[in-house]
Amino acid sequence: MNKRAKENLVVIHGGGPTAVLNSTLYGIILEALRSSKIQNIYGAVHGIKGILSKEFWNLGKQTRNVIKGLLNTPGSAIGSSRYRLEENDYGEILNVVKEYNIKYFLFNGGNDTMGNAFKFWSHTKQSGSEVRIIGIPKTVDNDLEYTDHCPGYGSAAMYIASAVRYLDMDNRSLPTPVTILETMGRNAGWLAASSCVAKQQEEDGPHLIYVPERPFEKDAFLKDVEDVFSKYKRAVIVVSEGIKDKNGAPVYESESAADTDEFGHILPGSVSQILANLISRKLKIRSRSEKPGLLGRAWSSLISKVDQEEAIRSGKEAVQHIIKGEDGIMLTLIGDSDKPYHCSIGTVELGKAAGVQKCLPKHFISDKGNHITEDFRSYVEPLIGEDLPRFIKFVKN
Amino acid sequence: MNKRAKENLVVIHGGGPTAVLNSTLYGIILEALRSSKIQNIYGAVHGIKGILSKEFWNLGKQTRNVIKGLLNTPGSAIGSSRYRLEENDYGEILNVVKEYNIKYFLFNGGNDTMGNAFKFWSHTKQSGSEVRIIGIPKTVDNDLEYTDHCPGYGSAAMYIASAVRYLDMDNRSLPTPVTILETMGRNAGWLAASSCVAKQQEEDGPHLIYVPERPFEKDAFLKDVEDVFSKYKRAVIVVSEGIKDKNGAPVYESESAADTDEFGHILPGSVSQILANLISRKLKIRSRSEKPGLLGRAWSSLISKVDQEEAIRSGKEAVQHIIKGEDGIMLTLIGDSDKPYHCSIGTVELGKAAGVQKCLPKHFISDKGNHITEDFRSYVEPLIGEDLPRFIKFVKN
Repeated sequence: MNKRAKENLVVIHGGGPTAVLNSTLYGIILEALRSSKIQNIYGAVHGIKGILSKEFWNLGKQTRNVIKGLLNTPGSAIGSSRYRLEENDYGEILNVVKEYNIKYFLFNGGNDTMGNAFKFWSHTKQSGSEVRIIGIPKTVDNDLEYTDHCPGYGSAAMYIASAVRYLDMDNRSLPTPVTILETMGRNAGWLAASSCVAKQQEEDGPHLIYVPERPFEKDAFLKDVEDVFSKYKRAVIVVSEGIKDKNGAPVYESESAADTDEFGHILPGSVSQILANLISRKLKIRSRSEKPGLLGRAWSSLISKVDQEEAIRSGKEAVQHIIKGEDGIMLTLIGDSDKPYHCSIGTVELGKAAGVQKCLPKHFISDKGNHITEDFRSYVEPLIGEDLPRFIKFVKN
Repeated sequence: MNKRAKENLVVIHGGGPTAVLNSTLYGIILEALRSSKIQNIYGAVHGIKGILSKEFWNLGKQTRNVIKGLLNTPGSAIGSSRYRLEENDYGEILNVVKEYNIKYFLFNGGNDTMGNAFKFWSHTKQSGSEVRIIGIPKTVDNDLEYTDHCPGYGSAAMYIASAVRYLDMDNRSLPTPVTILETMGRNAGWLAASSCVAKQQEEDGPHLIYVPERPFEKDAFLKDVEDVFSKYKRAVIVVSEGIKDKNGAPVYESESAADTDEFGHILPGSVSQILANLISRKLKIRSRSEKPGLLGRAWSSLISKVDQEEAIRSGKEAVQHIIKGEDGIMLTLIGDSDKPYHCSIGTVELGKAAGVQKCLPKHFISDKGNHITEDFRSYVEPLIGEDLPRFIKFVKN
């Protein structure tokens, strides 16, 4: 068989979508269409499952309007999955590789996806397959190691910081004294932390921020709320869904940190609701909680332009790297600490990036563990950009 | 004392804000500035409380930029309250009326606010005071009688319908089979119902909608979810926070409709979380719930232009009516059922509108009580307008 001049590329989405996951897909499609080495651009339907079942979107054959529409479409346009590769999948995948003349694999996802990519890559090296594999980072949680930040995080941070600005205006309008916003983040507090950018003046929310990296203590929390309330007669609080007690148990299922009812039963519920109940009962301050949840990663009308540009670029550069011959790596974003912010793209071995979770470092969390430092704010502001909503306030005269 | 040529107007906000409450304020300020009969435009700080404590914003003295900024500022820029007038407040208010030369009162709010306005108005008629009082409707719940709809509702409906479109894209991206969105609405299902507009094709969410006007039955609900799931392998469900069981008890606190844990304890929590737990446990289908709550009335970057225009207009017309000599009325919106949609402004006696709650009529709810009729869709679509987010989907080829 002659060496074919043109071979096929396949894109695999893994894990939860982001508001700009389809923007990376857009970048991949545009760059792959330009390449003389790539024939077909396949999107695996629901990730690795789509490869195993030979279900593909033919991405290069979509109309220009559809491809452009990816830029404001949330979710994963090809479909994602949380499937974990097993030993007997490799052979099957390599059969599909042969049948579909696939040379290039782009895995776009977080820790688990990089784990799949690395396992498959290791197998291809052992089996002598000539396919190439590159990982593209993606996560709203921002918890991938070796990259300054992840495409998808800036937009989710934009959503959370905006949500706090909106809630803060609502909170100060009415004597509904305490509002708690719950963010995604089981183990890493990057999203909750990003809410700090909402604050412009001392009196603005968020007044308190709690992240999973610091053990949550009920009494200290109640004291914090009392302090804020005595100062401002209101409080806007942000909390990661995954905050944990001193034994490492999530507060949403922990009796020691959460509250119990009068019969001693644990009150389950989302963590923000547990905390709202706690404040209402113990401090006698009316309190409510909001949990936009998945809306924070799907709200594609409010994204960070910086994030979207990096998402597109990471798609384009992944194609450039893979046709140049690179293999077994994950792209990384290298944020420049100088001003103005600038970001370049680097690489790291897949084996290093796979399965490692990056939590908030100590210097990003305030000493008391109830807020975020200026260091973190400097880190996150350029990722969100300049488009946070701004509101007016009346002047007394 | 000579009759003063120019007298003062005061604006009072009552109840929860909407995304366009400040747009009505904008309309009031602009129109009052044009009037030769009005000297000062006061905003009572936190409603009636501000009158009793003589705290006012001088609205006519704000800069043009600040006044224009009201159009995208959520919450209540003057401050609202849930204060209920008591018998001995009337005298105090009339003292302030004299001291501040107030002639015109605009009460902007929902049922309770119209109740306050009516009580105060009745007192002024008995006491021979010459002040005039007009109510301007406002509520995200859309539950005021005598008006086709309320300013504020269209924007909250826009938020909910958009949220379902975003969630639907997320839901179809990943095998996270069931997503439940909880909307505000203790007794009236107008907001949950508005989500129907998200659906464009049969397969789109919301697949099920539950409102407080129909008794919620756990078994019928589980059957509904199973049916949808067997068809689409996923489900997007919308539920009002206030759905009730057949005894009229809210599901979020009712043992008969909600679920109990293995010890027979009631599981409290937001209603959407109770339902998500129920599905996960009884149907063994992974399920999660989202509750954006107050974000749905504060998200001023995603409003209905139709709603905002009507909010501004109701502010302007309230000023026109009151300086013309009208008194003791609430403005109403009269939606035109012809196409294209057109809305004119009418009036109703305050005494009629006060304290009456309008729920979804029967012909707006589907026979099975798990969705909304085309009749309702025709009613709500013009209030939301044309700006709902639209997304692309790939074509198989």
